[in-house]
Amino acid sequence: MNSFGRIFKISIFGESHGKSVGVTLDGVPAGMSLCEEDFIPDLLRRKSGSKGTTPRNEDDIPEIISGVFNEKTTGAPLTVVFRNNNVSSKDYSNLVNHPRPGHADFTGKIKFGGFNDYRGGGHFSARMTLALVAAGVVAKKIINPAVVSAEIIEIGGERDYDNILTETMKQHDSLGGIIQCAAKMIPAGLGEPYFDSVESVISHLVFSIPAVKGIEFGDGFRSARMKGSEVNDNIINRDGTTEKNSSGGINGGITNSNDIIFRVAFRPTPSISKSQNTYNFSDDKMEVLEIHGRHDACVALRAPVIVESVCAAALADFMILEQIQKRIKE
Amino acid sequence: MNSFGRIFKISIFGESHGKSVGVTLDGVPAGMSLCEEDFIPDLLRRKSGSKGTTPRNEDDIPEIISGVFNEKTTGAPLTVVFRNNNVSSKDYSNLVNHPRPGHADFTGKIKFGGFNDYRGGGHFSARMTLALVAAGVVAKKIINPAVVSAEIIEIGGERDYDNILTETMKQHDSLGGIIQCAAKMIPAGLGEPYFDSVESVISHLVFSIPAVKGIEFGDGFRSARMKGSEVNDNIINRDGTTEKNSSGGINGGITNSNDIIFRVAFRPTPSISKSQNTYNFSDDKMEVLEIHGRHDACVALRAPVIVESVCAAALADFMILEQIQKRIKE
Amino acid sequence: MNSFGRIFKISIFGESHGKSVGVTLDGVPAGMSLCEEDFIPDLLRRKSGSKGTTPRNEDDIPEIISGVFNEKTTGAPLTVVFRNNNVSSKDYSNLVNHPRPGHADFTGKIKFGGFNDYRGGGHFSARMTLALVAAGVVAKKIINPAVVSAEIIEIGGERDYDNILTETMKQHDSLGGIIQCAAKMIPAGLGEPYFDSVESVISHLVFSIPAVKGIEFGDGFRSARMKGSEVNDNIINRDGTTEKNSSGGINGGITNSNDIIFRVAFRPTPSISKSQNTYNFSDDKMEVLEIHGRHDACVALRAPVIVESVCAAALADFMILEQIQKRIKE
Amino acid sequence: MNSFGRIFKISIFGESHGKSVGVTLDGVPAGMSLCEEDFIPDLLRRKSGSKGTTPRNEDDIPEIISGVFNEKTTGAPLTVVFRNNNVSSKDYSNLVNHPRPGHADFTGKIKFGGFNDYRGGGHFSARMTLALVAAGVVAKKIINPAVVSAEIIEIGGERDYDNILTETMKQHDSLGGIIQCAAKMIPAGLGEPYFDSVESVISHLVFSIPAVKGIEFGDGFRSARMKGSEVNDNIINRDGTTEKNSSGGINGGITNSNDIIFRVAFRPTPSISKSQNTYNFSDDKMEVLEIHGRHDACVALRAPVIVESVCAAALADFMILEQIQKRIKE
Repeated sequence: MNSFGRIFKISIFGESHGKSVGVTLDGVPAGMSLCEEDFIPDLLRRKSGSKGTTPRNEDDIPEIISGVFNEKTTGAPLTVVFRNNNVSSKDYSNLVNHPRPGHADFTGKIKFGGFNDYRGGGHFSARMTLALVAAGVVAKKIINPAVVSAEIIEIGGERDYDNILTETMKQHDSLGGIIQCAAKMIPAGLGEPYFDSVESVISHLVFSIPAVKGIEFGDGFRSARMKGSEVNDNIINRDGTTEKNSSGGINGGITNSNDIIFRVAFRPTPSISKSQNTYNFSDDKMEVLEIHGRHDACVALRAPVIVESVCAAALADFMILEQIQKRIKE
Repeated sequence: MNSFGRIFKISIFGESHGKSVGVTLDGVPAGMSLCEEDFIPDLLRRKSGSKGTTPRNEDDIPEIISGVFNEKTTGAPLTVVFRNNNVSSKDYSNLVNHPRPGHADFTGKIKFGGFNDYRGGGHFSARMTLALVAAGVVAKKIINPAVVSAEIIEIGGERDYDNILTETMKQHDSLGGIIQCAAKMIPAGLGEPYFDSVESVISHLVFSIPAVKGIEFGDGFRSARMKGSEVNDNIINRDGTTEKNSSGGINGGITNSNDIIFRVAFRPTPSISKSQNTYNFSDDKMEVLEIHGRHDACVALRAPVIVESVCAAALADFMILEQIQKRIKE
Repeated sequence: MNSFGRIFKISIFGESHGKSVGVTLDGVPAGMSLCEEDFIPDLLRRKSGSKGTTPRNEDDIPEIISGVFNEKTTGAPLTVVFRNNNVSSKDYSNLVNHPRPGHADFTGKIKFGGFNDYRGGGHFSARMTLALVAAGVVAKKIINPAVVSAEIIEIGGERDYDNILTETMKQHDSLGGIIQCAAKMIPAGLGEPYFDSVESVISHLVFSIPAVKGIEFGDGFRSARMKGSEVNDNIINRDGTTEKNSSGGINGGITNSNDIIFRVAFRPTPSISKSQNTYNFSDDKMEVLEIHGRHDACVALRAPVIVESVCAAALADFMILEQIQKRIKE
Repeated sequence: MNSFGRIFKISIFGESHGKSVGVTLDGVPAGMSLCEEDFIPDLLRRKSGSKGTTPRNEDDIPEIISGVFNEKTTGAPLTVVFRNNNVSSKDYSNLVNHPRPGHADFTGKIKFGGFNDYRGGGHFSARMTLALVAAGVVAKKIINPAVVSAEIIEIGGERDYDNILTETMKQHDSLGGIIQCAAKMIPAGLGEPYFDSVESVISHLVFSIPAVKGIEFGDGFRSARMKGSEVNDNIINRDGTTEKNSSGGINGGITNSNDIIFRVAFRPTPSISKSQNTYNFSDDKMEVLEIHGRHDACVALRAPVIVESVCAAALADFMILEQIQKRIKE
């Protein structure tokens, strides 16, 4: 349940305030160049630091503990571990009985019978996205020369969001945002009709990212308000290229050689310093909750690299699989 | 790749103009009452007939060929087959070289090297949703007393869409729409953090439905434009009930005992009688394509029961799994 | 749980005295020639008729209901159904309370809470091996030019078993036997270390065949009684060919380009006409049971084609997978 | 491919002479007591030291890096890592071109295109069984009060093998052996007909252990030489207990409430100090190979705890799954 993929398989483990978070990748092709430095650029993109992100400052140092030999992947499982060094010693135990609105404090307790590591969100923490980014670094190498890139297209409903962000931080509040992701140089023929459609697999992974509440491909929700003659998209070239790419690069679940385009909605981070009401499970009454600590004003700010990572992971699996089918047909 | 689920597993097979479409369900609990009549109400909801749906008139008669004995499920795989009786004898072979815009004609050909059954969309046909609806009928019994219900909330951008539909049919065009689905009486604790989040699994299945281009849970894309203090949702009761259900019943991937709420965007059906351009792969040039035949002006009209079905299938699997975990904790 | 395989996936369904037994194959490459006649030779090898096999005479007529178009596989799921025509009308309900020794009557009842179709063994019946043989026919085409062939090497402990068999039938008793299977022209490099070792996957499928109680590869149990210097096997050629093939074609879970060799032990069929004791679950006492009906004196007689089928299925999946890995390395 | 299990899932990683070997367990129920000391007794049983085992002396210290909080399992993935401290600095690179007979040197090279970590067998090393034993420790807690115990029943064909072993070591040779494993207190109803039969799953895991070449359940190969009336086994009690347990606790793939009994054949370790021939892939000629280093004279000596571990892992998964099905039937 903490794994995903058919051949290129990601398994994540760890807790925010435990010893480590990490990821094991199975199905990595042998012979790819890989070293710890390769992870740094994307880890830095995810890392806190810019305005609106938490000042928690982990070193986020990746250690490859299996699957690489002489700086090449071996074909055996590849495990990357991040030790948690900068763990706050504060007491989180009050979250057990005073769950934070919008967080997984209540559901985690219900799910795991109160045995979950509740410190800093534990296994539910956004720190687990380190593992996703590490997976993405390897996936991006696999899909090369295809490339995936994501960018923020709005924060708080605005394309030009700098002021908005300053204002919201002053109010001790938080903002959501929308990330757009594009995958280019994608061969036609990836994906399957129905359950393993490209949309199905990408959306599955995208909803694994904390705070995601929506996804749309191509014209998405807008196309639900259009006519067939407006959405339909003429093929203009033998390779399948179309005029407008209204379907976001996918027809019938399968890539059509246009760019894959999708947008992801991130809700505002639920951790805000403003006072909120919650249920006190010890005393069975409503009560005011104050959340202190280090929080992002907008998780979407760090999300582009995470969205890219899961998209690359989905595509890596599809590309590895597609090689089978072509080969057999030949 | 044509299967989905961990314990309650759906496998679909068939082609629009082949001998049959069908579904095998594995992991169905033994001892549930089930007979062929049980499938009729939902099959009728999916069936053509109302304004805006195709006049193709299959009998859609389900035959249970395994897994039921004395009108009870046996615990062995349950297979339901629908024979295709009303297959049009027209020649579909021109679609191979003149793919219809927005359809899977091009991608299916690329994917399967030209060996796919292209007649009426073959395995890509919306007729395959018969198999999904049959799976849904069984899933709904499994999740009882939880219930799933979906409804059209807009067609062509309008909540009151009757005129719009008449007008569009006159123009030989088609319309998209938005379906909202609600699952009620859902216990808290279903789902997992990350890869098997409830959103991940439901979206995976929803994107298996032809013509779906977007999904959002709770406040969805709207929440990306809101502040944390607006989206955050106070727990007001020991059972986890919240004030506004802004997260659509799911926190951290896990149900929180509120209703699960999501909306699905359907693009307009790509089959329109209006002239369109397409690429002629025999002669390597653009050319005008006229599509005749029996088509829906709006596939979303038949979609509520399909969306319900895949949602019920996802929940059936989660509920079966959840029983494990509770039992062990006890 | 009624499916197996990673890319080439077999799903079986059906009951001995229900409407049908059948199989769905997913991951079949598109473009292979296939028609219903292709199944006949192996179905006949499995079929009853020779001395020691049951006179039950089903027609065993395969019907391909999906996945083939113009006598070529389409790449979509391939379903083959066998209708049960020659179902005995006798009453099997006494097996519920008087389970036959060595059969699954007791375990099936416990497993499925009494809802299993107990007639003729229901889903546990050896008739389900029709589905395995059908899968094998397709698998053998996929692995071509590799070939799999199995033969009886002993019945009742004898290589020359004809008299023994006659004698045992007179005694209304049954016999076990040993089948040896060889797969030739197998490329080196199939399989994985540990969980997906070639031995693991073949043994998994072989133990799916009713009445199998043992399997050994290469020198097998005999090698446990030998010295390393006797078992070790020199590579004598660049392609990996060894002197004696003591390891049965597999080292470290991976094929080494020698033939794969394994032997399978089949217990005697538990259905014998001799009187036996059993527990009467209605009256809670021991009681004498007489089994009448149509039974094999030795199920192993029909087993070679079944063992071949599951071996071919395992190899088909490995070969499809191996194509990925080679391609990526290149 | 380096994972196994449906709910209780084992994923292993690591190399003999890399940084570490380890295991991630998913699906571990929350709330079980677990600390690093719990692993020690079984790790010691596996560890080198007694006569016939290699003097390589790793500390084999388990570190739990995720999934445990306050000495209880959390329900999140549980990862145990063993750092490799006592790694020999010798040069293994000659194995690449001079593969050792009976080892995976040749197949590993073919499989992974020469990129595998060949030092000390790399990912193929028997050191990976540390990961299996760690998984077994957790699995044994899950299946409690059921217990699994394995013992050596022969080494080199002898039940009393002490002298034999001394003699063989003098000859710089090695010996195989047979391990018998019994699982007691097993509820009836575990397992499935066909692909998830208890024999299928146990054998799958048992063949994941290096050097295993055969397995048999109950009377096994002996039953292939017996008559039905001899093998058939009367149920003598309402709970399913039989007279002789000739089927090793399993009928139709499903446990029958008797002990599960199976035997496993281990070939002699292929690493022997005696001179052997092998193919020299650099010069394309046969040549004499001398293997030095630290080796077991008989790997079977350390195998009982490994066989127990994989058996417990299989049973843990079955028991977790069985809880579902019972619950639903109720």
